[in-house]
Amino acid sequence: MTTAITGSAVTALRETVCRLHDELVRYGLVAWTAGNVSGRVPGEDLFVIKPSGISYDDLTPESIVVCDLDGNLVDGDLAPSSDTAAHAYVYRAMPHVGGVVHTHSTYASAWAARGEAIPCVLTAMADEFGGEIPVGPFALIGNDDIGKGIVATLEGHRSPAVLMQNHGVFTIGKDARAAVKAAVMCEDVARTVHVARQLGEPLPIAQADIDRLHDRYQNVYGQR
Amino acid sequence: MTTAITGSAVTALRETVCRLHDELVRYGLVAWTAGNVSGRVPGEDLFVIKPSGISYDDLTPESIVVCDLDGNLVDGDLAPSSDTAAHAYVYRAMPHVGGVVHTHSTYASAWAARGEAIPCVLTAMADEFGGEIPVGPFALIGNDDIGKGIVATLEGHRSPAVLMQNHGVFTIGKDARAAVKAAVMCEDVARTVHVARQLGEPLPIAQADIDRLHDRYQNVYGQR
Amino acid sequence: MTTAITGSAVTALRETVCRLHDELVRYGLVAWTAGNVSGRVPGEDLFVIKPSGISYDDLTPESIVVCDLDGNLVDGDLAPSSDTAAHAYVYRAMPHVGGVVHTHSTYASAWAARGEAIPCVLTAMADEFGGEIPVGPFALIGNDDIGKGIVATLEGHRSPAVLMQNHGVFTIGKDARAAVKAAVMCEDVARTVHVARQLGEPLPIAQADIDRLHDRYQNVYGQR
Amino acid sequence: MTTAITGSAVTALRETVCRLHDELVRYGLVAWTAGNVSGRVPGEDLFVIKPSGISYDDLTPESIVVCDLDGNLVDGDLAPSSDTAAHAYVYRAMPHVGGVVHTHSTYASAWAARGEAIPCVLTAMADEFGGEIPVGPFALIGNDDIGKGIVATLEGHRSPAVLMQNHGVFTIGKDARAAVKAAVMCEDVARTVHVARQLGEPLPIAQADIDRLHDRYQNVYGQR
Repeated sequence: MTTAITGSAVTALRETVCRLHDELVRYGLVAWTAGNVSGRVPGEDLFVIKPSGISYDDLTPESIVVCDLDGNLVDGDLAPSSDTAAHAYVYRAMPHVGGVVHTHSTYASAWAARGEAIPCVLTAMADEFGGEIPVGPFALIGNDDIGKGIVATLEGHRSPAVLMQNHGVFTIGKDARAAVKAAVMCEDVARTVHVARQLGEPLPIAQADIDRLHDRYQNVYGQR
Repeated sequence: MTTAITGSAVTALRETVCRLHDELVRYGLVAWTAGNVSGRVPGEDLFVIKPSGISYDDLTPESIVVCDLDGNLVDGDLAPSSDTAAHAYVYRAMPHVGGVVHTHSTYASAWAARGEAIPCVLTAMADEFGGEIPVGPFALIGNDDIGKGIVATLEGHRSPAVLMQNHGVFTIGKDARAAVKAAVMCEDVARTVHVARQLGEPLPIAQADIDRLHDRYQNVYGQR
Repeated sequence: MTTAITGSAVTALRETVCRLHDELVRYGLVAWTAGNVSGRVPGEDLFVIKPSGISYDDLTPESIVVCDLDGNLVDGDLAPSSDTAAHAYVYRAMPHVGGVVHTHSTYASAWAARGEAIPCVLTAMADEFGGEIPVGPFALIGNDDIGKGIVATLEGHRSPAVLMQNHGVFTIGKDARAAVKAAVMCEDVARTVHVARQLGEPLPIAQADIDRLHDRYQNVYGQR
Repeated sequence: MTTAITGSAVTALRETVCRLHDELVRYGLVAWTAGNVSGRVPGEDLFVIKPSGISYDDLTPESIVVCDLDGNLVDGDLAPSSDTAAHAYVYRAMPHVGGVVHTHSTYASAWAARGEAIPCVLTAMADEFGGEIPVGPFALIGNDDIGKGIVATLEGHRSPAVLMQNHGVFTIGKDARAAVKAAVMCEDVARTVHVARQLGEPLPIAQADIDRLHDRYQNVYGQR
């Protein structure tokens, strides 16, 4: 159907993005086929993304499709994810983003259903999100509305995650793995803060402490 | 006990229906032996269904039984599911239905215990169910009451899932796989809407938007 | 330490009881080593039970110990479960019981912590328990108090499960497998009724309907 | 980078501590890389701990690092956990402690987010914790504040677990395995008591009964 993109960077990225979907399954972020990972091809106006409606068991690196930044299929035998336009918009508007993830994970989507941001009351949330996880607008699938809502919301925040109203979560990262991590941590803190609020009000964390935690985590944590 | 039905369509369907029970287990929709999948044999007044009280570990394609549309055992060594009469009624009354699933999945059954429909406050719910997931009547097992309740409720709805009061979920689909998908998505949205409502009221989605989402998902999503 | 009991019935029962602990793990009923299964040796005043404080990964048929009906170790290299006295009391007092299971499963133990019986608002509960799941007294470990509390509570009920106040669940059955099934179903309905009650009151089921459901399930369900 | 510590005690401890991280994963106590286990090297002023930001799938005994009691890296190719200073402070201040575990497990962290101790309303909690699970102060990472908060809180309690406000759980034990057990049981009781409280007030257990249960469990349970 399309010209084969056979560079080794694309081949490796298809493998990486294919396997990252296993993390969505492992952490229980997705039911049936409802969630997808994409990754920007370094140095190209291209990204790779899950094909539409394919079960995670059946995903192979070869089944991952390649799209241009308008969301058009460039290489692959299957139709791209129905969320491709949203991913493409983010890559066009945010050049520093190398990976995008979308899920309907339970607790994050529950906050999204109420249109309520998740308050930053956990040090792990300060670490990863640098503050609250914000809510984006209600938007229908089928044009750039979802992509615009993601970008408009995330541009004013440190958070790599946005709760799209009545819908689910989109996360971004420097690469696909970082976006998957943000999706995993988003559901984790969405659940913990939900559980905390069920029996009372969580204690606030001072903004200056949130700032210190976020700065340290972004610059000291992990291996250099 | 019964004449062997050895056509290759039946053999393949037994294999498919056997394996689809693994999805009920994987998504945590069933405890012990409480849940079953059936599939209509294409072009025949027959369907295949789980035998009664057999553990999912012990299910084999050969153990799946074949019944006629009155629920009588036609082929197989084991007694059919105790829910066979309900499946049979649905196949008799709804010729477009090719698969039926029954579970007591936790969150859906909790809505059913209160006799409360699940409101459509998630785009994923608009996609798959086209509106609320309705409640059917309380009905005892042992005659056609459950089947009648399922059909009477679903005939007035886009939803492929019905919450039978104080009981559990029945889902339908064009084939057994589609009915299993509906069962998985029903529990997923039942849980997310439950969690959302624990801390406030979810925001409504306008009916026109529900209609657009449902139309698109049914006609555009997945591979053509 | 003790005379070897090497009859084939004991050998087979050790194997069965060993493997049934896997079901406690599979259904998430136990954390670390907190839960145990026992089974009466047919025709003997003996039962087999988990050794104390051994992890489920390390359980082998040989590690399962044999006790007399006073709870004394008769065969085995390890100390019996610290709950052995409660199991022994049940076997002495209830000759029809062939299996006993104890867990601290989350939702059942939460009802037990409030000292509240689980109301019968699900048809699956009517099937397996024939009514509410009752609460037994608070009792300390170390003598026959727990056993007495189990027996005094279950003698007045159809339910094979009792919620021991502030403690956890004991279930009984005609054999160890039936008691494990009751433990699995107890947690399943404890969770569903809990979830139902979080957002309102479950609808009641008429006593006559509970009776019909229980009678049918005990006499018609499964393979004959 | 550092002098190799090649004694067989260190080699064995690296293996043990590596494998104990699997228990954090198995019991769902950790998301991504957020949780760590350490163990004191018997007879040395050293302990071994997880490296920072390494996924549990990629942990090997060789990747576990060795630190002195000031938290300085003594052997290993990777940077130690960002929580190393807290572990080190505990080992310096509490000579009887041979293992420390840190997680952000959901239910325990939810109590911590509200700054609320978990009341002792389960016999399993009396057994393992001997009373309530206390709350420690809010403290930032980067100096000894977390370690001081852990020690100041646990010194006045039987509990081997402390809920650090807005943060998560630290547990201690005579060795790393005991600290992991405390982390598993802490989340288990945090969840059960949370669920109990969602629908009312758990019944209290008399202090004298808590004392008896704790004494018996610490001295009689398990194999001698």
